[in-house]
Amino acid sequence: MTKPLRVGILGATGTVGQRFIQMLDGHPNFQVTALAASERSQARRFIEACEWRLPGEMPAYARDILVQPLEPSLDCDVIFSSLPAALAREVEMEFARAGFPVISNSSAFRMEPDVPLLVPEVNAGHLKVLETQRRKGRFGPGSLLANPNCSAIVLTMALAPLHERFGAEAVMATTIQAISGAGYPGVASLDILDNVLPFIEGEEEKIERETRKILGRAAGSEIEMAAMKVSAQCHRANVSDGHMVAVRVALSKRARIDEVREAFESFRGVPQELRLHSAPDRPIVFRDEPNRPQPRLDRDAGGGMSV
Amino acid sequence: MTKPLRVGILGATGTVGQRFIQMLDGHPNFQVTALAASERSQARRFIEACEWRLPGEMPAYARDILVQPLEPSLDCDVIFSSLPAALAREVEMEFARAGFPVISNSSAFRMEPDVPLLVPEVNAGHLKVLETQRRKGRFGPGSLLANPNCSAIVLTMALAPLHERFGAEAVMATTIQAISGAGYPGVASLDILDNVLPFIEGEEEKIERETRKILGRAAGSEIEMAAMKVSAQCHRANVSDGHMVAVRVALSKRARIDEVREAFESFRGVPQELRLHSAPDRPIVFRDEPNRPQPRLDRDAGGGMSV
Amino acid sequence: MTKPLRVGILGATGTVGQRFIQMLDGHPNFQVTALAASERSQARRFIEACEWRLPGEMPAYARDILVQPLEPSLDCDVIFSSLPAALAREVEMEFARAGFPVISNSSAFRMEPDVPLLVPEVNAGHLKVLETQRRKGRFGPGSLLANPNCSAIVLTMALAPLHERFGAEAVMATTIQAISGAGYPGVASLDILDNVLPFIEGEEEKIERETRKILGRAAGSEIEMAAMKVSAQCHRANVSDGHMVAVRVALSKRARIDEVREAFESFRGVPQELRLHSAPDRPIVFRDEPNRPQPRLDRDAGGGMSV
Amino acid sequence: MTKPLRVGILGATGTVGQRFIQMLDGHPNFQVTALAASERSQARRFIEACEWRLPGEMPAYARDILVQPLEPSLDCDVIFSSLPAALAREVEMEFARAGFPVISNSSAFRMEPDVPLLVPEVNAGHLKVLETQRRKGRFGPGSLLANPNCSAIVLTMALAPLHERFGAEAVMATTIQAISGAGYPGVASLDILDNVLPFIEGEEEKIERETRKILGRAAGSEIEMAAMKVSAQCHRANVSDGHMVAVRVALSKRARIDEVREAFESFRGVPQELRLHSAPDRPIVFRDEPNRPQPRLDRDAGGGMSV
Repeated sequence: MTKPLRVGILGATGTVGQRFIQMLDGHPNFQVTALAASERSQARRFIEACEWRLPGEMPAYARDILVQPLEPSLDCDVIFSSLPAALAREVEMEFARAGFPVISNSSAFRMEPDVPLLVPEVNAGHLKVLETQRRKGRFGPGSLLANPNCSAIVLTMALAPLHERFGAEAVMATTIQAISGAGYPGVASLDILDNVLPFIEGEEEKIERETRKILGRAAGSEIEMAAMKVSAQCHRANVSDGHMVAVRVALSKRARIDEVREAFESFRGVPQELRLHSAPDRPIVFRDEPNRPQPRLDRDAGGGMSV
Repeated sequence: MTKPLRVGILGATGTVGQRFIQMLDGHPNFQVTALAASERSQARRFIEACEWRLPGEMPAYARDILVQPLEPSLDCDVIFSSLPAALAREVEMEFARAGFPVISNSSAFRMEPDVPLLVPEVNAGHLKVLETQRRKGRFGPGSLLANPNCSAIVLTMALAPLHERFGAEAVMATTIQAISGAGYPGVASLDILDNVLPFIEGEEEKIERETRKILGRAAGSEIEMAAMKVSAQCHRANVSDGHMVAVRVALSKRARIDEVREAFESFRGVPQELRLHSAPDRPIVFRDEPNRPQPRLDRDAGGGMSV
Repeated sequence: MTKPLRVGILGATGTVGQRFIQMLDGHPNFQVTALAASERSQARRFIEACEWRLPGEMPAYARDILVQPLEPSLDCDVIFSSLPAALAREVEMEFARAGFPVISNSSAFRMEPDVPLLVPEVNAGHLKVLETQRRKGRFGPGSLLANPNCSAIVLTMALAPLHERFGAEAVMATTIQAISGAGYPGVASLDILDNVLPFIEGEEEKIERETRKILGRAAGSEIEMAAMKVSAQCHRANVSDGHMVAVRVALSKRARIDEVREAFESFRGVPQELRLHSAPDRPIVFRDEPNRPQPRLDRDAGGGMSV
Repeated sequence: MTKPLRVGILGATGTVGQRFIQMLDGHPNFQVTALAASERSQARRFIEACEWRLPGEMPAYARDILVQPLEPSLDCDVIFSSLPAALAREVEMEFARAGFPVISNSSAFRMEPDVPLLVPEVNAGHLKVLETQRRKGRFGPGSLLANPNCSAIVLTMALAPLHERFGAEAVMATTIQAISGAGYPGVASLDILDNVLPFIEGEEEKIERETRKILGRAAGSEIEMAAMKVSAQCHRANVSDGHMVAVRVALSKRARIDEVREAFESFRGVPQELRLHSAPDRPIVFRDEPNRPQPRLDRDAGGGMSV
C-alpha cells in the first residue's frame, strides 16, 4: 500500500468541513494534516475552534490540530475546500497557484470548461482536461477539480446508465431536498416546521447547468455540455439528510422496463473497479417497492454513497 | 334570504365529517340537522361519539345531535357523505334512490360519465349532466354529485384559466402532500418524521384521470374527458395541512408571462358571481415572491379555499 | 367610547413587532401610528422594510407607514417596545425620559423593584408602584412597565388561583417550549428537527426570578418578591407556537381536587371585569382529558390568550 | 469461546422484535434460530412476513427463517419475547413452563416480587431471586426475567450511582419521550406534528413503580422496593428515537457537584466487568455542555446503550 496523501481542509469548522473530517477518519488513502478556517478560529485547537454538529463525537485525530489561516503554507499534498463561493474564488486560486491540487466543494469554478466537475462513477474520463488546465497555466503549477451541487450528483448518477444506453433527450427533475444542504445555521426552524419551501436560491440553475456538464464529453481540451434539455424545480422539506428527486426522462431509444432495471442494477464506475475505500458496491440501489426510496430509510445505503 | 337547506352528514365522526361540521357552523345556506356514522357511534350524542381532532372546539350546535345509522331515514334535504370508498358505493346509492341529492367525498362514483366531478369555479356547467342521471334513473329519484380528489382540486383550479385561454396539452404534476389527506390515524409518525414518502396508494391514477374529467366538457348527456396528457408523481411530506403541486404545462398557444399572470389573477367562477358564503374573492392567489407558496403561510388564504 | 390611544412600536420589523401589529389590527382601544426600527429599515415603507413572517397577510393599515428611527420624536401616546435587551436598556429609557409610557417586552428592566412586571389577570395591583417610579423620577416624566418572560406568564397565570387560595410554597416547573420564543431566525432547523434541546440561555433564571416577582405584593412603594421557592428546567421542542409547562406545586393548605378545579375555573382578573378587547372569558381553561393540553390543539384557546 | 446460545424471538415481526434481530446480528454469544409471531405471519419466510421498518436492511441471516407459531416447540435455548402485555401473560408462562428461560419485554410480570426487573449495570444482584422462582415452581422448570419500561431504564441507570453513594430519597422525573416507544404504527402523525402530547397511557405509573423495584434490594427470596418517593410526568415529542428525562433528586447526604460528577463518570456495572458484547465502556456519559444531552446527537452514544 502506498503512503496516504496528506490532506489540508479549507473551511474546516463548517458543516461540510466537519463532514470531510468525519469521512476521512481512518481512511486508508488520506490523512488529514492541516485544518484552515477564517480568522475567528485561527490559532486555536480544532476542538476549541469548532462546535461539532454531526451525530457522534469529533474524531480524536482532529481535536488537537491547530487551525491555521487560509494561506498556502499548509503542510499537505492536496486541498479539500469547503469555502463559501464568494471566498472560494480567490483563496482556491491562490492555493492552486502555489502548486496544490485543489478539490473544491464550492460553485466558484464549476462551470469553467477546463475544470472537471466530477462524479467519479459517471465521468472519471473528464479528468483528462486537467492537462488543458496545466497547459493553459491559469491555475499555475497546481490544479482544480470541482465537486458538483449535491442534487446534481444524485440526479446524474441515476441518469448516467440511462443516458449511456438509451440517450437522455430531456430531463424534468423535481427535488425535495434536506435541510443539511443549506449548511449551518442554514434554514430557520420557523421557516420549515410544518412546511415546504418551493425555492432554493440558485439551485435550479445549478442543477440544470451542471447536469449537462457532468453528462457531457471531454472533447479535445474541454468539456462539451450534453445536448439534453434539463428542467429543475427545487423544494426544501423538513428532512435532516437525504435529497429526493422525482425525475421524468425522455429517451432517444425505446427501453423496456426490464432493460431500465438492468441498466440501473449493473451500473458500476471506475471507483468500483478500483475498489476505492468509500465506493459502494452498487452506486445505484434499485428498489421495487412502491414506497421507496425514503430519505430516512435509504440515505445511508452504501455507506451514504449510493443513490 | 331563503330558508337554509337541511344537511345530513354521513361519516360524521371521521376527520372529513368533522371538517364538514366545522365549515357549516354558522353557514347561511346550510343547517346540519342529521349526523350518521357506523354502528359503534350510533345512538350516542355526537360529543360522546366523536373524538374531536381539529384545532378549536367542536361547534356547539353539533354536540347534542344524536348519531344515527347510515340509513335513508335521516331528516334532511341533502346528504354530504364522507364515507370510505368501499362503504360509499352502496350506502350513497341507497340514499340517492331514497330521493336525496348526495354530495359525495368518496372516489366511488367519481369517474362515471353522468356524475359531475365538481370544482365549482372550474366546471359548474357540468351540473347539467344531472339531467342525464335523472333520465337514466340509475340513482332513482335522487342524484349524486362527486367531490374530486384533494390534489386534483388544487391542480385543476390552477390549470383552468390556462386551459381556457391557451389550451393545456400536457401536464406534469409533482405533488408534495400533507398528512391530513390520509385521514386519521392515517400516516404513522414513525413513517413521516424526518422523511418524505414517494408514494400515495392510488393517488397518481386519481389525479391523472380526474384532472381530465374536471377540465372536460359536458357534451350532450355526458362528460367528455379533456384530451390533454396528465402525468402525476405524488409525495407525502411532514406537513399537517396544505398540498403543494409543482406543475409543468405544455400550452397550445404561446403565452407571455404577463398574460399567464393576468389569466390567474382575473380568474373568477360561478361561486364568485353568486357571492357564495365560502367562495373566496380570488380563487387563485398569484404570488410574485420566489419562495411562495408555502403550506404553512398560504394554506388559509381565502379562508382556506384559494389555491 | 373614548378615542383610541396612538401606539408607536419599537422593533416593528421583528417577529414580536409583527405580532403587535397583527394583534392591534382593528383594536378598539389602540391605533398604531408609528413604527420604528434599526437603521437598515428606516425611511422605507413598512411593506418594503419588513419581511412578514406570520401566517396571513400583513395588516393593510401598516403597509404604508414609514419606518422611523428609534428616537423619541414618534407621533404617538404610548410605546410598545420589542427591542432586544441590549438595545432596550438605553432606548426605552430615552423614550420614558421624553415623557412616553413605555410597555417593554425586553428583559432589561424586568427585575427592578419599581417596575411592574405585569400579567394583567394576576397582578394588576402592581401598577400602583408606577407612583414610586414617577416620584423617584428615574424614568423622567414617562413611565416603564414590563412584560414578563413568555413561560413565566403561562406559569404564573396557572399558579395565581392556587397561590391565592392555598398558598404556593414551592414550585417545580419543567417547560417544553416552542421555537417561536426564540424569534427569527432563532433556532436552526438542523438543531431541532427530530430533537429536543435541554437548555435555553437565561430562561431558567428568568422564570425562577420573574415568577416570584409576578406573584409578589406591591408593598408600599416597591414590589416584594413572593416567598415561594421556584425551580425551572427548560426545554425547546419542535413546536411552532405554544409553550407547555409541567408543574408540581407544594401548597401550604391541603386542597381537594375539586377545590383546585374550582379555583382554576372560577379564576377571573381585572381584564375580564373590564371586558377588555383581547381578554378571554376564561383566562385558564381547565381540561379533564388526560391527553390535554396539547400545543397544536390548545394554543389558540381564548384567542391565544388563555392558559 | 463457548458456543452461542440459540435464541427464539416471540413477536418477531413487530418493531421491538426487529430491533432484537438487528442487535443480535453478528453477536458472539447469541444466535437467532427461531422466530415466532401471530397467525398472520406463520409459515412464511421472515422476509415475506415482515415489513422491515428500521433504517438499514433486514439482516441477511433472518430472511429465510420460517416464522413459527407462538408455541413452545421452538428449537432454541432461550426466549426473547416482545409480545404485547395482554398476550404475553399467557404465552410467556407457557414457554417458561415448557422449560425455557424467558426474557420478557412486556409489562406482564414486571412487578412480581420474584421476577428480576433487570438493568444489568444497576441490579445484576437481583438475578438471585430466580432461585425463589425455581423453588416456588410457578414458572415450572423454566424461568422468567423482565426488561423494564424504556424510560425507567434510562432513569434508574442515571440514579444508580447517586443512590448508592448519597441515597436518593425523592425523585421527580419529567420525561420527553420519542415516538419509537409506542411501536408501529403507534403515534399518528397528525397527533404529534407541531405538537407535544402530555400523556402516555400507563407510563407514569410504570416509571414510578419500576424505578423503586429496580433500585430495590434482593432481600432473602424477593425483591424489596426502594423506600424513595418517585413522581413521573410523561410527555411525547416529535422525536424518532431517544427518551429524555429531566430529573430532580433529593439526596440523603449532601453531595458536592464534583462528587456527583465523579459518581456518574466512574460508574461501571457487571456488564463492563465482564466486557459483554454490547456493554458500552461508560454506561453513563456525563456532559458538561449546557445544551446537552440532545436525542439526535446523543442517542447513539455507547452504541445506543449509554445514558
